[in-house]
Amino acid sequence: MNDLLQNPRKVYVSRTIEFNAAHRLFNPNWPESENLEVYGKCSNKYGHGHNYLLEITVSGTVNRNTGFLFDLKELKAILEEEVIARFDHRHLNHDVPELQDCVPTTEVLAVLIWDIVAERLQSINNREIVLHEVKLYETGKNAVRYLGE
Amino acid sequence: MNDLLQNPRKVYVSRTIEFNAAHRLFNPNWPESENLEVYGKCSNKYGHGHNYLLEITVSGTVNRNTGFLFDLKELKAILEEEVIARFDHRHLNHDVPELQDCVPTTEVLAVLIWDIVAERLQSINNREIVLHEVKLYETGKNAVRYLGE
Amino acid sequence: MNDLLQNPRKVYVSRTIEFNAAHRLFNPNWPESENLEVYGKCSNKYGHGHNYLLEITVSGTVNRNTGFLFDLKELKAILEEEVIARFDHRHLNHDVPELQDCVPTTEVLAVLIWDIVAERLQSINNREIVLHEVKLYETGKNAVRYLGE
Amino acid sequence: MNDLLQNPRKVYVSRTIEFNAAHRLFNPNWPESENLEVYGKCSNKYGHGHNYLLEITVSGTVNRNTGFLFDLKELKAILEEEVIARFDHRHLNHDVPELQDCVPTTEVLAVLIWDIVAERLQSINNREIVLHEVKLYETGKNAVRYLGE
Amino acid sequence: MNDLLQNPRKVYVSRTIEFNAAHRLFNPNWPESENLEVYGKCSNKYGHGHNYLLEITVSGTVNRNTGFLFDLKELKAILEEEVIARFDHRHLNHDVPELQDCVPTTEVLAVLIWDIVAERLQSINNREIVLHEVKLYETGKNAVRYLGE
Amino acid sequence: MNDLLQNPRKVYVSRTIEFNAAHRLFNPNWPESENLEVYGKCSNKYGHGHNYLLEITVSGTVNRNTGFLFDLKELKAILEEEVIARFDHRHLNHDVPELQDCVPTTEVLAVLIWDIVAERLQSINNREIVLHEVKLYETGKNAVRYLGE
Repeated sequence: MNDLLQNPRKVYVSRTIEFNAAHRLFNPNWPESENLEVYGKCSNKYGHGHNYLLEITVSGTVNRNTGFLFDLKELKAILEEEVIARFDHRHLNHDVPELQDCVPTTEVLAVLIWDIVAERLQSINNREIVLHEVKLYETGKNAVRYLGE
Repeated sequence: MNDLLQNPRKVYVSRTIEFNAAHRLFNPNWPESENLEVYGKCSNKYGHGHNYLLEITVSGTVNRNTGFLFDLKELKAILEEEVIARFDHRHLNHDVPELQDCVPTTEVLAVLIWDIVAERLQSINNREIVLHEVKLYETGKNAVRYLGE
Repeated sequence: MNDLLQNPRKVYVSRTIEFNAAHRLFNPNWPESENLEVYGKCSNKYGHGHNYLLEITVSGTVNRNTGFLFDLKELKAILEEEVIARFDHRHLNHDVPELQDCVPTTEVLAVLIWDIVAERLQSINNREIVLHEVKLYETGKNAVRYLGE
Repeated sequence: MNDLLQNPRKVYVSRTIEFNAAHRLFNPNWPESENLEVYGKCSNKYGHGHNYLLEITVSGTVNRNTGFLFDLKELKAILEEEVIARFDHRHLNHDVPELQDCVPTTEVLAVLIWDIVAERLQSINNREIVLHEVKLYETGKNAVRYLGE
Repeated sequence: MNDLLQNPRKVYVSRTIEFNAAHRLFNPNWPESENLEVYGKCSNKYGHGHNYLLEITVSGTVNRNTGFLFDLKELKAILEEEVIARFDHRHLNHDVPELQDCVPTTEVLAVLIWDIVAERLQSINNREIVLHEVKLYETGKNAVRYLGE
Repeated sequence: MNDLLQNPRKVYVSRTIEFNAAHRLFNPNWPESENLEVYGKCSNKYGHGHNYLLEITVSGTVNRNTGFLFDLKELKAILEEEVIARFDHRHLNHDVPELQDCVPTTEVLAVLIWDIVAERLQSINNREIVLHEVKLYETGKNAVRYLGE
C-alpha cells in the first residue's frame, strides 16, 4: 500500500441488511384502552409488520495491508447470525426471548440490536473496530439511530 | 385546452400507496410438515410482516376540460377506504374476512385487491375509466402484477 | 457479433432524466371557485413545483454491428434539446408556448412530450427506432404513462 | 419494560415528509444581470419547483413506559401544521411571509424550518426532547443539513 | 383456498437481483478509432463497471393449492446458478464464454440472459410458467427490456 | 436577506455524483492464494465493477448576500474535474496513477477522494468552506465515510 495509508485513517463502514418481521405495540401492564390511546392501530391484537432496514456502522483505522477496516464478508456473517437468525420472519412479541418484557418499538429494537452486536464485536476483535451506530428504518419515512449513549 | 387534446388520448395513471401488514403462509388443509416444506420460514406460527407497496394503474381518455384522467384525490380516497382501511396495520390471516380461506401470498393479495378496486371503480364511473393493473411489492425485490386476465 | 444477434431481437431501451419545474393547475375558462373545487391547492395563484422524472422508452431491433438499439449519447442529446431546454427550471404555465392554452397536468405534459419526441425521432431515423412509451413521475407516488394511443 | 431501558438510552428519531413548492433564486437588491450571473437559470422570472424531502431528527432518552422517544403521530401532526401548511403547494417567494426578504435557497429554507420547529418543540415539551437536525433535499443529489449551530 | 382462485388467474411475478461486473464496449472487428467514435469512454482499454440490477418476470396461472405462481426460493436458486455464478464479480469481455464474440452492451446482455433463463425454465417445468420479461438496469438511468420477440 | 441570517448559521451542504468504474482487490505483495483467501471473488483476475455513488459534504457559514454556502455549480465543476475525469469509466487498478500501489478498496478510494478534494478546496477558497465528509457507496448496501480523521 502506498503512502495513502502511511498515517492512520479512521473510517466508518456501513452495511445495510433487511429483515421482515411482525410486531404489536402493546404494554401488558396497561389496560387495552390505554394501549389503544397510546399506540392506536399499532396495538391491533395480532400485530402488523414491516420490512426493517438496518444499517450497521463500525469504525476504526484502515488496515495498511488489506485496505479494509473490516472484512465485509465477516461482518455479513455476524449480522446473519445475530440479527437475521433472531428477527427475520419472526413476530417480535412472540418469537424473540430478549423482547419478552418489552414493547417492541423501533427505539427498543435499535437499542437491543446495539447491545447484541456490540457484545459480539467485542468478543471477536482486539478492540480495533468498534460499533459506531445502529440505524433502523421501520419504513422509508421513520428511522431511529442509536450510538451507544 | 388547446388542440393537444383534440384527439382522444389514452393514458395510464398510477398511484402508489403503502400498507404495513403481517401474514403467515400456511395452508390449514395441510399438516405442519408440508407447510414447512412448501413455505419454509414464511410459515412460522405467529407470522412476520412487510411494508407492502401497491401501485394501482387506471386507464382511459384524458378529459378535455380538466386535463385529468381521474382526479387523484378521488382515487386516493378510494384506496384509503378499500385498501388502507382493510389491510393497513392488520394481520392478513386473522383480520381480513376476504382472506379467511386463503393462503395470503402476494399473488392472492394482488388478485383480491384487483377484485375489490375493480368493483368499486365500476360502481362510481360510467366505464370511461378502467382498472388496468395492480402491482404489489412485498419487498423491494419481489413483486406481483395482475391485469385481470 | 456472434450468433446471439443472428435473429432480429426487439428490445425496449429506457432513459430517465429529471427536470425541475413549477406549474399551476388552472383553467382560465372557469371561475376561481370552480378551479378551487377541481384542483384544490394545486390551483394556488403562483404555482408550486416538482422534480419531474421522465422515462423515455424507444423500441426496435438491436443493431448487429454495434450491439446497440440506439446510441444513448444520441438519445441523451435529443432529450437535452427537446425536454430539458424546454421545461427545466421553467414555470410551465408561463414559459412554455406549447402549453399556453392548456392546464399543465401530468397527463397533458406526458402527451406533449410524446408529440415532441416522436416527431424528432421520426425526423432523424429511418423508422427503425420508434418511441414506445413516455412515463412521467410528478412525485414518487404519481405517474402517467402515454403510449401514443 | 425489561432491563433494556434500565439505563437511559439516548436515541435519534427521524421522520421524513415531502412538500412540493416553487421558488425563484433572486436577490431584489441586485440588478437582473447579477442575479443571472450568480443564480443562472434558477433566477428565471416565474420560478421553477421541487419535490422537497425533509428529514427532521429529534433526540432524547427513550421513555421507559412507552418505548417511544416521541410519539410519531404527534411529531407528524406538528410537521403538518408547521411545515406542510406553510410550504406545500406554495411559491416560496410569494406565499411565505417568513421568506419575504430572503433568497429562498435550500440553505435558507433549512435554517427557517429549524427555527420554526425548534420553537414549537420547546413550547410543547419539558425539554426532554430536542431538535437535533434538519436535513432538506432539494433533489436526490442536493441536500443541506442544519444542526442549530 | 376459497373462491378467489376458482377461476384461473394469470399473474406476473418479478424477482430482482444484483450483480457487479466490469465490461468494455469494443468491437474487435473495428480499428480503435471507430470503437472510440462509437463507444467513447465506454471503450477505454481495461473496461469499467456497473452494479447491474436484473428484474426477471415470469407469468402463468396461480396454483390453487399453494397460492404461488412459482416458489420464489426455486426462482432464486435458478438465478443464482444461471446469472450470479456466470456474471457476478466478472469481467464480461474476459470471463463469460457466451459473450466471447460479442460487444457486451446492455442490450446484448439482456438478450443473453433471456436465452439462458428461458431454456432453464423450459427444462424444469411443464410449460405452465413462462419467462415473460428480462429487464436489465445498467445504471439507475438506463435500462433495457427484452420480451423474447 | 432578512434577519434569518443575522447570526452566522453553519450548514452542511451535500452533493451526490455517480461514477462507473472497474476494480480488482489484489495485493501484489501477496501470493494468489492469500489474495483469494482475503478477497475471494473480488480478486478475480480481470476485475469487476460498480456504479459508485459519492456524497461530498462541505460545511461553513451561509453567505448573507447569496443565501448559499457554496455555489453548487462551482462544486459540481470541481467534482467533474477531480473525481469524474479521474475515475469515471476507468479501471481503478490500471488507469488511476494515485492508486498504483494500493488495493482499491472502498476505504482507500474514500480516503484518496478526500485528499484530492480537500486540497482543491483549500486552493480555491479562503478557508471559509471546508470539506466535512466523503461518503462512498460501492453498492446500495455498502458504504464508507471518511471525515479526515
